[in-house]
Order: sequence, then C-alpha cells, then structure tokens
Amino acid sequence: MTDLHWLTISAAAALIERRELSPVELTEACLARIEALEPRLNAFITVLADEARAEARTAADEITRGEYRDPLHGVPIALKDIFDVAGVRTTAASSILADNVAEADSDAAERLRAAGAIIIGKLNLHEFAFGATGRDSHFGPARNPWDTEVVTGGSSSGSGAAVASGECLGALGTDTGGSIRIPASLCGIAGIKPTFGRVSRRGVVPLSWSLDHVGPLARSVEDCAILLQALAGHDPGDQSSDDMPVPDYRANLRDGVRGLRIGLPETFFSEQLDPEVEAAVKKAIGVLEELGAQVMPVALPHIVAAPAALSAFMLPEATAYHQRWLNERADEYSDSVRYRLEIGATYSAVQYVQGQRFREMIVRDWRDEVFSKVDLLATAATQIPAARIDGSDLSVTWSLIRLTNPINLLGLPAISVPCGFTGNNLPIGLQLVGRWWDEATVFRAAHAYEQATDWHTRRPPL
Amino acid sequence: MTDLHWLTISAAAALIERRELSPVELTEACLARIEALEPRLNAFITVLADEARAEARTAADEITRGEYRDPLHGVPIALKDIFDVAGVRTTAASSILADNVAEADSDAAERLRAAGAIIIGKLNLHEFAFGATGRDSHFGPARNPWDTEVVTGGSSSGSGAAVASGECLGALGTDTGGSIRIPASLCGIAGIKPTFGRVSRRGVVPLSWSLDHVGPLARSVEDCAILLQALAGHDPGDQSSDDMPVPDYRANLRDGVRGLRIGLPETFFSEQLDPEVEAAVKKAIGVLEELGAQVMPVALPHIVAAPAALSAFMLPEATAYHQRWLNERADEYSDSVRYRLEIGATYSAVQYVQGQRFREMIVRDWRDEVFSKVDLLATAATQIPAARIDGSDLSVTWSLIRLTNPINLLGLPAISVPCGFTGNNLPIGLQLVGRWWDEATVFRAAHAYEQATDWHTRRPPL
Repeated sequence: MTDLHWLTISAAAALIERRELSPVELTEACLARIEALEPRLNAFITVLADEARAEARTAADEITRGEYRDPLHGVPIALKDIFDVAGVRTTAASSILADNVAEADSDAAERLRAAGAIIIGKLNLHEFAFGATGRDSHFGPARNPWDTEVVTGGSSSGSGAAVASGECLGALGTDTGGSIRIPASLCGIAGIKPTFGRVSRRGVVPLSWSLDHVGPLARSVEDCAILLQALAGHDPGDQSSDDMPVPDYRANLRDGVRGLRIGLPETFFSEQLDPEVEAAVKKAIGVLEELGAQVMPVALPHIVAAPAALSAFMLPEATAYHQRWLNERADEYSDSVRYRLEIGATYSAVQYVQGQRFREMIVRDWRDEVFSKVDLLATAATQIPAARIDGSDLSVTWSLIRLTNPINLLGLPAISVPCGFTGNNLPIGLQLVGRWWDEATVFRAAHAYEQATDWHTRRPPL
Repeated sequence: MTDLHWLTISAAAALIERRELSPVELTEACLARIEALEPRLNAFITVLADEARAEARTAADEITRGEYRDPLHGVPIALKDIFDVAGVRTTAASSILADNVAEADSDAAERLRAAGAIIIGKLNLHEFAFGATGRDSHFGPARNPWDTEVVTGGSSSGSGAAVASGECLGALGTDTGGSIRIPASLCGIAGIKPTFGRVSRRGVVPLSWSLDHVGPLARSVEDCAILLQALAGHDPGDQSSDDMPVPDYRANLRDGVRGLRIGLPETFFSEQLDPEVEAAVKKAIGVLEELGAQVMPVALPHIVAAPAALSAFMLPEATAYHQRWLNERADEYSDSVRYRLEIGATYSAVQYVQGQRFREMIVRDWRDEVFSKVDLLATAATQIPAARIDGSDLSVTWSLIRLTNPINLLGLPAISVPCGFTGNNLPIGLQLVGRWWDEATVFRAAHAYEQATDWHTRRPPL
C-alpha cells in the first residue's frame, strides 16, 4: 500500500478494523513523512516517535485480540502544544514554558487515548495561541504546505500544516477568535470550532476562558465528526463544560442539505473580501443551492459591535493569566504578544462587564432573529488567503480573524471547509455556522458540499 | 380572632385551608397594621391596598369554591421595591426610578401570584440595594420596629421592618452581600439567601448579577421554606438561573440536627464580634450541640481574601448598570451610593477577571476541604447589633456585611435566625450556611434551633 499518510481517518479506520492495515504501519508512514517534511514545515515542536510506536504496537495487539474500539483506534493524531500530555512538555510555543513538563493528560488527550488514538506529537502554534498568523513562535513559524513562504494561519499553525501535509491524520487545535478555522482555511483542510461548552479545556493553556474552544482539524468533514465524537462531553474539571447530550455526529452525515435554510449575511461578512475569496464562496453557495438548500439573505443584529466586545474579554483575560510572567519575564514574549498583553491591562472592569452584557444581548437576538429563520449561515472563513510570512502585520491579523471572531463571542459551532484555490494555488475556506449545540447540521451541510466538490482531495506540492 | 397580623404563614394557611380564616380578614388586618405603623416605620414605598383587597376577595372566592392551592393562598406578602409588579412603580428607593412603572411581573411576583399570595405592597430599601444599613432611601429610611432610632439593616430594610412589625406575613428581599440576612438579623426574623441560581432575578433591578440573590424573609423558618418553595425553580429569563431539581423543603424540616456536622470557623467569622453577639452565638451553638449536632472547628481556605474579590465584582457591575445615569443624573444619587459607583469605575478588567479566578478557586477548595467535613457552618449573621441611624457610617456598613458577603461570593445557601437580644433589646442573628443546593439542611437545622428556643416569638415594642 502506498501513501498511507494520505488516508482519511475514516478510510484508515475501515482498513484497520478489517485488519488490512496495522496501526504500526500507519504510524511508521506518518513518522517517515514527519522526518521528510519537518525541515521545511516546522509543524511539530515535539515528535513522540518512541511513544507513538509503543502505542501503535499496543493498538495493533488489541485489534489482533479482537478488541477493536472505534474509528480512532490505532490512528496517529497530533495535538497543538498547549494540550497537556502526561510526561511531555507543553511549551505553548513560548520561551516561558519551554521546559514545562505536564503531570497529567488534558481531558482531550485522555479522551483520545480512551478512543485508542496514537498521540504522535505536539504541534507548533502562535506563541500562547495569541495570534492569527502563526508567525510568532519561540520555535520559529510553522510553514504552509501550499507555499512555505506564506503563513499557515494561527494560532493552530502546526495543526493546519501537519494535517494538510500528511504528517498525521488529524489534529487538535483551539479556537479563541478563529484559531482552528483560520489555519483550516489557509491550509485547505476542514476544522471545526464546536459549541462553547461542548469540549473540555481542562489541561489546556488558556488564552481567554470566556472564548477558548477545543476542536479538531482533519482532511475531511467526516474525520472532524469522528474526532469531535471522541472529544465531546461533560467534564466537571472545566467550569464552562456543559452537560448536554452528545448526538451521533455521523448518524445523519449523509442526509444532504435539501430543505436546510442557509442564511447569507447582508452585511459585515459580505464586506472587505478579497475578490478571489468572494468568487469562490459565491460559487460554493451556488453548489449548496443546487444540492437543494434554501439560500436566503439574513440580517445579523449587533454584528458590527461584536469584535470590540470580544476584545474586551480576550485581552484582559489573557493579561490576567499572564500577569505574573508579564511582571517578571516580559522580555521573553514576542513583541506582538507582549503588546497585546499590555493592551489588556488598559481595559476597565466596566468595559469588561459591558462586554458581558453585550454578549447576553447578541446571543438572545441571534437566537430570536437569526436562528428562527435559518439553520446555518454561510460565509468566507477568512476574507483573504494566506499572506507572506515576512509581510504579515497587524492588518493581516485583523483580516484573518474578522469573520471568525464574532462566532466565538456567540459560542456557535462553525466549520471551515476548502472551497477553492487562488490563482497562486492557495486554499480558500468556506465557513458554515450552525445553531448552538447543533454541530450535526454543520457537519451534514459541510459533508454534502465536500462530496459535491473535489477541493478536499487536492494535495499540496511537497 | 385577635392579632391576625402576628400569625405565621403556616398558622394562617392552616386556618385558611379549613376556612376558619378568610384572606379578606387577614388582608384587612395587615392593612390596618400598615396604616397604624407606617408613620413610625416607613417600611413601605407603595401600599397596594385596593389591589390587595381585590386579590383577597378572589382568593376567598376560590377557596370557597374548593380551589385551595397551597400555604400561600390568600396570604399577604410584600415585595422589596426592586421587584417588578405589573402596573406598579418600581422605584428601587431612588429618585431616578421614582416614576418607573413596570410593564410585567418579575418572575418572583409571577410565582407568588401562581401560589395565590396577596401582593400587599412594595417595600423600602437602601437606594438601588447598594448599602447595608438601609439608611439612604429617596423615601427616607425604614425604621427598626425594635427601636425606631436604629437602622433596620439593608438593603432589604423595609422587608425586615414590615415582617418584624406584623405589617405582612412574609416579604421578598434580595441579597448581594447580605441584604436579606442583615435586616433579618437586625430585625429579629428569619431570612434566607438561597443557593446562587436557585431563584430567578428576572424583573428585579440588578445590583451585581454575579452576586444578586432573591430570597424570602418571614417570622419562622418554616415560613421561609414555604416562600422559597414557591420562588425556586428554573427560569430561562435569567441567565444565572439553574435547572436543578427543587426538593420539598418541608419534607424533612422536623428531622432535627442529630448527626449533622456543624463547623465552627476558626478564624475570620470568630473575630471582631461585639461581645453580646459573640455570647449569644456561642449559646446558640451550645443549643445545637444539645440537640445532637456534632460541632467541630473548621478551617476556611482563602476566606480573608474573599471580601476584596467580592468588591471587584460588585462595584464594577453596579457601575456598568448605572453608567448612563451616572453620566447624566449623578446628582440624584445619595452621596454614599454615588461614591460606590465612582469607585466601581476605577477597577481594571484584570482585577475583575482575577476576582473570577479567585471565585473558582475558593468554590473548589470549600467544596473539597470544608463541605467534605461538615454539613453546615454556624456563625453570627452580623457581628454587631443594629446601630443608630444617625451615626451609621462606612465602618458600620463594613461591620454589617463582613460575615455575610463571603457567602455571596461562594453562592452558598445561608439563613439568619434570631438567637438572642442585647441588653438594649436589639435582636441578634445566627447564620447557618449550607452546601450548594442544600437549602433543605439549612432549614432543618434552623427549624430545630428555632423550636428549641423562643427568640422568634418575641414581638417588638410597638
């Protein structure tokens, strides 16, 4: 069998379950790919080669004994390096935590292990997850497999690069203002930010606990569904984790979009788009319509004020978490991160509290006025494709987060799936946003779109 | 029948159910009492005499038809004037809202009506519920029935005075830092702050939504249980309202304290007590021990830092709510309230956020280290008895809130019940604090104590 590293999780799982593929082979294929590509991509901070080999042998033995578990059993997955894995350092791509060895697994790592996944390594990110480009990392930037001179998007930069390049079959990221959807969009893969409260953040270095979400990135929508299935569920160890029933995300995956009402935002999301992005997203929405979705314009209350409210949460919460280090080790931060942490100190408590009140209002009004009329929103995931690493400044950051970050304030589930390429062969992402707790409908529409197109089958020129 | 106005709710209910007492008679008795005492007490801002008479007649007719509902049917209850009652002004004892007529009932008023209670009026309070003495009200201070020259305690000042003087059989208050328990303590009645999230605040003028609690004041523990039974339950209209099962609060009320473990705080709560208060509380704990409770010392993690964390929530949240009026109508506030609102503006978002983090830590550590060892805490409710209205300054306010306000940060249920009198015949309150959601055990212990003593049967010299 050739190119094992390009298998989707669902395809690999079918082979593993039938014992036509061993977790050992699959893990070796990924490790070989990592060895070949890392000099160019820098997607990993820590490769757990020995540990992964041992876990793969255990999985192989279990399966040989007839103890096959589920579609992640024996599948190599990598974790953004802010998830604790017991005995392994969690660096958050920072100098400050460069030698920080985790004592216990994060909830996400525990759940992956319980599902039988192989943890193959810890992935690069924007320092402390506080940036949308992925450019600033104590370990140097991860590079985009489609063009190693452009950004991967961040903050889950290594997650985007590793999955898009076949170094692993899926990855975990976190998303505070877009940090899963942005690298998914810029690297041409699928990535979902689930509903706020759906996946525990226990054992994850926080950026902003009011906005942080854990979620998967993978090479197909179904693979994201498989990963989220393993991750979702209540954890008393995360105060924001909700005890909501978790549906079977693949039960209705193939039901198509006929009859679904998809809203096209009349403002904000339709503005400031790069022309190639705008054209690709328009075409994607046409595909959804041809597949039977009912597409209609929709007004989005308060959307213009959402980014400021989001900042009023994100910046002071980040500053509070970093306060001690900011006092004692400020020179170890990259300039861009330190600058943001310093801005966080300037917010007043009244601004923060007004942000909370705004969030209550926007959540209520979107529930009553948006999701009473439509089942999903369709927008671009990022309004621009990947920019060059060298030229990436604050305006690039802003362009990258603008269409994702309001969704964090709202806590809605949202996926990015590939919907085209620029003339320079850089991926473009379509964002589908669903109702609270309704990841299933997001997956269903994204899968229908994916299966009707072939963007997700393109491979980067590596 | 004489002195109907001194009936407890449970006693009145027994008579009403047997049709030996008409809601009309009972309501007239309270209205007569109000008419006789208000010139001296000033407990009411609005007396709803006509409405109450009409409701009483309706209740009487229902009961005559055999449609008796529950122990509040036909019982006159008054509401602190920050609860909306449709068609009636909600002043919050302020100039700013002096003409603010409510369009709809608060959740609490709705539930009282559903239980058949008669809403007899709207009660005085400390302006915008932002003070512990009850001294500052646009309508003048409510006065303590035990001595009209001393404060009632606040902010639910009118609730304390009206119930203690027999102007109504029970009242609703709110408690952000002690505003139910303080007037209960200073007026010699029972008052419970339930678990945070137990009772909806919809339709209640907020002070600090992270700390505001709705709860009842009455002349017996059982009456508090009857009122809380009506008030408790989930309301999607209040974001902090929890969907937790509500037990039958009277089912185990008479089970006594044998075997209950009651913790005596080793620090903080045992310090700075007025000697008469200290002696009375010590004696009360002796009574609980004689009744079979197991009394033991207990350490309370982080307690010393709790008041500062509470202020970091309360002050900025209040300022945020008042921001517009503070800009435009600052001269309409009393000096003490405006001063606190101005302090709220000086807090940073980082301080607020650190307060949140502190709260998570103290909640976790009290759960693990305190309520793993004991079922209840016993303390004084206020460390001093009522002070003179004229001399009440910030140090009096601080002495009044010191033992109640940490419990708001923790969100634990806590009752104050009368446990003695000073040499000047001023009431002293015992505070019993229970586990989250376990008001039932708080009621059970408070009832056992109450029935073993006769403090709750004393009447003020009016």
